[in-house]
Amino acid sequence: MSSFVQVDKDSHFSYENLPYGIFSTGDDGRKRVGVAIGEFVLDLSKLWSRFKGPLMSGVSKAVLGEAESLNPLMALSPGHWSETRSTVKALLSAQDPISIKKEKDAFLVSMKGVQMHLPAQIGDYTDFYSSIDHATNVGTMFRGKENALMPNWKHLPVGYHGRASSVVVSGTPIQRPNGQTKPLETEPPTFGPCKLMDFELEMAFFVGGPENELGKPIPIDKAQDRIFGMVVMNDWSARDIQKWEYVPLGPFLAKNMGTTISPWVVPLEALKPFLTSNYPQEPAPLPYLRHDDPFNFDINLQVSIKPEGTSKEDTVSRSNFKHMYWTTKQQLAHHSATGCNMRPGDLLASGTISGPEETSYGSMLELSWKGSKAVKLESSGQERKFLKDGDLVNVSGYCQGDGFRVGFGECLGKVLPANPL
Amino acid sequence: MSSFVQVDKDSHFSYENLPYGIFSTGDDGRKRVGVAIGEFVLDLSKLWSRFKGPLMSGVSKAVLGEAESLNPLMALSPGHWSETRSTVKALLSAQDPISIKKEKDAFLVSMKGVQMHLPAQIGDYTDFYSSIDHATNVGTMFRGKENALMPNWKHLPVGYHGRASSVVVSGTPIQRPNGQTKPLETEPPTFGPCKLMDFELEMAFFVGGPENELGKPIPIDKAQDRIFGMVVMNDWSARDIQKWEYVPLGPFLAKNMGTTISPWVVPLEALKPFLTSNYPQEPAPLPYLRHDDPFNFDINLQVSIKPEGTSKEDTVSRSNFKHMYWTTKQQLAHHSATGCNMRPGDLLASGTISGPEETSYGSMLELSWKGSKAVKLESSGQERKFLKDGDLVNVSGYCQGDGFRVGFGECLGKVLPANPL
Repeated sequence: MSSFVQVDKDSHFSYENLPYGIFSTGDDGRKRVGVAIGEFVLDLSKLWSRFKGPLMSGVSKAVLGEAESLNPLMALSPGHWSETRSTVKALLSAQDPISIKKEKDAFLVSMKGVQMHLPAQIGDYTDFYSSIDHATNVGTMFRGKENALMPNWKHLPVGYHGRASSVVVSGTPIQRPNGQTKPLETEPPTFGPCKLMDFELEMAFFVGGPENELGKPIPIDKAQDRIFGMVVMNDWSARDIQKWEYVPLGPFLAKNMGTTISPWVVPLEALKPFLTSNYPQEPAPLPYLRHDDPFNFDINLQVSIKPEGTSKEDTVSRSNFKHMYWTTKQQLAHHSATGCNMRPGDLLASGTISGPEETSYGSMLELSWKGSKAVKLESSGQERKFLKDGDLVNVSGYCQGDGFRVGFGECLGKVLPANPL
Repeated sequence: MSSFVQVDKDSHFSYENLPYGIFSTGDDGRKRVGVAIGEFVLDLSKLWSRFKGPLMSGVSKAVLGEAESLNPLMALSPGHWSETRSTVKALLSAQDPISIKKEKDAFLVSMKGVQMHLPAQIGDYTDFYSSIDHATNVGTMFRGKENALMPNWKHLPVGYHGRASSVVVSGTPIQRPNGQTKPLETEPPTFGPCKLMDFELEMAFFVGGPENELGKPIPIDKAQDRIFGMVVMNDWSARDIQKWEYVPLGPFLAKNMGTTISPWVVPLEALKPFLTSNYPQEPAPLPYLRHDDPFNFDINLQVSIKPEGTSKEDTVSRSNFKHMYWTTKQQLAHHSATGCNMRPGDLLASGTISGPEETSYGSMLELSWKGSKAVKLESSGQERKFLKDGDLVNVSGYCQGDGFRVGFGECLGKVLPANPL
């Protein structure tokens, strides 16, 4: 099957992808459900009545026609998601009887003219710490090579609760935070602009399916049914604020100035052709975390920086999702093992994804090795240890198919100066 | 002014209190806004048209008549809350022209026949660690007396993000969680039922007022306008799960099995007569955390346990909110200092509130001093180091006025056995 929409081979939004997002247009401010293809957005709010499959026909008006977020779609089941995707494929196909080829101008909107919004109302946001290279790097910096990984790290996917209200969509500017830090060991703490502003290259998945009741865990062999799709993420971090505040209860304000996600949610089904073998886990995890099927993904990831007043961005990190030690199924099974209820629209992030090479580190903290060396931005001749005001940071990622890409688009954010004190 | 409703002097719900909650009844399942007085609930959903003040008249239908949570009321301003409270006082007064005295049966529902629900949709839940006696006790147990308080503790209100989805209303049973623990230093971790199940005596406040934009902090001198009201809370804790998981990113699954709050939200205005001097802070906090007016409250708090099959509860802790080192205004100013957007309905908790005496400790961890001594339950002749299955735990609190109480009612939860493995 092929589409009547022409898609460039480098486009993130191939016919093999078809990610979901929430958009509005200048002449229609309603937030509504769309699907990205090439340089267009397919307006599902106008097409709900054409979803005539047995599962979707009864609910498509509420879920696709009238919804202002993806939560109603996320709350359904893998069967519903699969049927929806098949219908979208048929609508966009060159030959299918229900193809909209002849009425395409009524339903396809140019991507240039749309405003993207947060894809879901995020009930809770959790951030894991599941990249072994990142955890080892940070541990080595602060505790030395011998004690780099904490004793629990290989036994469970370490994670913490993040702030849901400050998760924003790509393009939202991020203000450098003021905060309390302790620059000198021997002096009292001070309050002022963060001096060690950083990005974190991450991915995250949206929980789907009906909420499990409090007290009823999601077993690992059912976890896949509760994963709707994925986004790329920049988990902005204020390293100096974090260092002073985080003992003993973890990161708090160092992450609250904003967490940026890409607007397009790539469904799990589109990622399955890019399944790759899991990271070898030694020791073997406890049974509640054990699964034998591959559930790791080959997703190229990168981060670029474009300083204010320059015209080109420079890539400062090239990593890959496949470096993750813990799988998303393991994260979800662990998160709910105590009976925690997981709601559709909850966002679970990977933690910084670093690879083994120095050029694949997913944060300035690691790239500049705690500020001990500068990272060159070739195009502008500038260099960075941490982020400067005006820097435009772009986190992006894609799976490379044979002549097509399944990508996540952009996850952009510009650092604005701190508020005056 | 006095009410036509007779209220016992020991009742938590005096005419001076008038807390808000969300209730439904057997013959009307709609969730709706009510006010507690004595043994009755005033059904505001039927009275919205009588709110004729300049601020509320235009919005009372949406906020009081049709709302299924307190979020719409919380999203307004102190002026709206004050006007609403005045009108409720008048409706319940013995003499006021708008008193409902003669039609009371139409609007007052017996508390025995109502089902209480979560008072608000909680966007984000944050837990602080603001009791100096609690922090000192826990620090002494795990790090020794010399290093009991971390270096940051007296400089900022230490806190962390909690899980919003698992906050439940009083009466919801709490299942003992299964989780990963490491009982023996020399052996690998195991998975099974939590052995050190605990309560935490806490209070929490609901954020009110319009959301501050991301990047725009709430200054300390405006913080009071963003505090809607307070509840009592039990932040259930799995101590053995917490011990193994929490380094370096803080508590995660050890708190996810449930956090119980009382259904009635006592408005700030009802608490103001019980203002008391702040805890002396030395060193003086940084300017962004400094306020000179008293904003501490004299609220008697207690925890009781009723073992399964027994008929009486025993009080195991008597504490007071006034032992808090950091004020709620300081917590809110700190939380938003980095620009974090705070939404109406966000819940910010105190952390365990212990007092200086051994009988005022707010958790079994402290009362049993890490399990080294048993706590007697006099009525049943039983004793506890941590909680057993079937234990019914009740956290409650009230301010004592001259012949009346401003109380929070009950915050009940029964420990159910863990799921079989």
